[in-house]
Amino acid sequence: MSVSSSPATAPSDLPLSGRRVLVPGGLGFLGLNLVPALLAAGASVRLLNRSADPLAMSWLEEVRDGRSVEVCRGDIAETGNMRDWIEGVDVVVNLAGESGALKSVREAQMDMRVNVAGHLNLLDALREAGARPRVIFVSSRLVYGVTGPTPVTEDHPTRPTSLYGVHKLTVENYHRLYWEHYGIPYVVLRVTNPYGPYQLPRRVHHGVLNRFIMAAVRGEAIQLYGGGGQLRDYISVKDVTRAVLLAATDPRAIANTFNVGFGAAVSIQSVTARILGIAGSGRLVDAPWPAGYRTVETGDFLCDVGRIRGALGWSAGIDLDTGLRETVDAYRKLL
Amino acid sequence: MSVSSSPATAPSDLPLSGRRVLVPGGLGFLGLNLVPALLAAGASVRLLNRSADPLAMSWLEEVRDGRSVEVCRGDIAETGNMRDWIEGVDVVVNLAGESGALKSVREAQMDMRVNVAGHLNLLDALREAGARPRVIFVSSRLVYGVTGPTPVTEDHPTRPTSLYGVHKLTVENYHRLYWEHYGIPYVVLRVTNPYGPYQLPRRVHHGVLNRFIMAAVRGEAIQLYGGGGQLRDYISVKDVTRAVLLAATDPRAIANTFNVGFGAAVSIQSVTARILGIAGSGRLVDAPWPAGYRTVETGDFLCDVGRIRGALGWSAGIDLDTGLRETVDAYRKLL
Repeated sequence: MSVSSSPATAPSDLPLSGRRVLVPGGLGFLGLNLVPALLAAGASVRLLNRSADPLAMSWLEEVRDGRSVEVCRGDIAETGNMRDWIEGVDVVVNLAGESGALKSVREAQMDMRVNVAGHLNLLDALREAGARPRVIFVSSRLVYGVTGPTPVTEDHPTRPTSLYGVHKLTVENYHRLYWEHYGIPYVVLRVTNPYGPYQLPRRVHHGVLNRFIMAAVRGEAIQLYGGGGQLRDYISVKDVTRAVLLAATDPRAIANTFNVGFGAAVSIQSVTARILGIAGSGRLVDAPWPAGYRTVETGDFLCDVGRIRGALGWSAGIDLDTGLRETVDAYRKLL
Repeated sequence: MSVSSSPATAPSDLPLSGRRVLVPGGLGFLGLNLVPALLAAGASVRLLNRSADPLAMSWLEEVRDGRSVEVCRGDIAETGNMRDWIEGVDVVVNLAGESGALKSVREAQMDMRVNVAGHLNLLDALREAGARPRVIFVSSRLVYGVTGPTPVTEDHPTRPTSLYGVHKLTVENYHRLYWEHYGIPYVVLRVTNPYGPYQLPRRVHHGVLNRFIMAAVRGEAIQLYGGGGQLRDYISVKDVTRAVLLAATDPRAIANTFNVGFGAAVSIQSVTARILGIAGSGRLVDAPWPAGYRTVETGDFLCDVGRIRGALGWSAGIDLDTGLRETVDAYRKLL
């Protein structure tokens, strides 16, 4: 169905003007931030989603702001309608899947179906249809596993601590092979810890910073496991969106894997203190590690963003305090 | 069904005496070489196979030599009978799956089902049943991809050229995670290019050296693609069997990944010349690369076997000429 039939906005300078972009999983956190940027660039946007959460749909109304977006209901693991979904598509930004490292270990078969089988199905459908759109696969820093506090380049060994990370790695490899064997161009983006507006409040398995922010603005307790001393590389979803747009348009991006992070490390404890300060509400509670969490926990993580800076000229532009402030404001609107 | 109810042979020195060993995929090339070694060590052997090829079944009769072997018909991707199959098992030597790098790229979905889903299903069944047998997962040198002629250690980056290699890597990671999260002990063996008796003649997607040997003893042409200058690390299946027995019994093997190869490189051209000399029949035909082969081809490969030698005291004992001679004799019996 088409949510609206109003014409797309005027073309921008980006070469996405008039291009059709398929976004599997586009009603999620990254997707709802990406959609307005794609529309602003003049792209024709087709979202593909397994479910249509009412809050996500109302957010879609907000971000499309009267502009047309095609919304398809379906799962990339299905073969039935795949040919229709990929029809005429120039770019695929593949955000489909289920997040959550611990959940992936507890529901391994589900994670395999959702985070592996569907992606292979999509690539196979492109191959069979002779379609060669550029495919942006949004992967995760969780492919690296335990790294220590040294900045991690894309050549760092990969030893995920969860099935989620293993499956991201598997699908990264699928994209590389479908390029090498069939010429389907791809870009892999390994995103660190993104935060920002449009994450559904009921999501408890991932997006820790957004959950902390939501708890703070509601005046609730933020549970910090094991002291929160571990370092993380937090990035605003707006910066991630800029990286996706470059990955989708810059010819130098093709067949590359890029870290997408801030390139600076902050402890979970420190970022939590900043959130409480900015929100002016909420409180901190020290808690022991719940069962299973410690085994998927990666400890310190910090990524090296030299490759994407060198290749595409991208680097994060939104500092943590600014980004947190914007995010606190966004979630306060939901109260 | 039980092929025979005759008592197991006398226990050997190996601590496999009286232990129950489940061998999914045990009617294949590696399995039929492993079974007599397991029986000789006094193990109780349960094979699990999707199909029961008549030639493989007659070979099983030959190798069990009157000793009892339990043969179950089934697929590790099925959940229905899994609890029965894993019941009371002390060791799992997991040889299930479909070989063939090029085939995996052409039949990607099939390869995922057979070479990923079934293995996860088996591990999940062990977890749910509270069973903690030692699981030996036989992986492949194909997880490395293109390496060049330098000896490859287990820490070498992994960049497979085929879905087969990607899926082996995925399942290696499953085993590591089920150890880290659930305490199911594992050993991963990355086997190079094994050759020896008991490979079915109709297998065309893998086991290149055995196919060359079969062609030579039949007086047929051996097709050598692109000159055959690339180096490979060939190992007798008997040496692989010894490595599996150590992996199944040595406490130092647990939670390790080992290369299992000869540790010496020979060109395909050179090994083919030796085969023709030993067989005294067959001939060489230069052929261009068939479609697809070049993209999965890894080029030179040679593995470093320092880790398994250091940890388990294992190294290959059968030199190439001896091994080829034994294999030529074995396949001549089939004429």
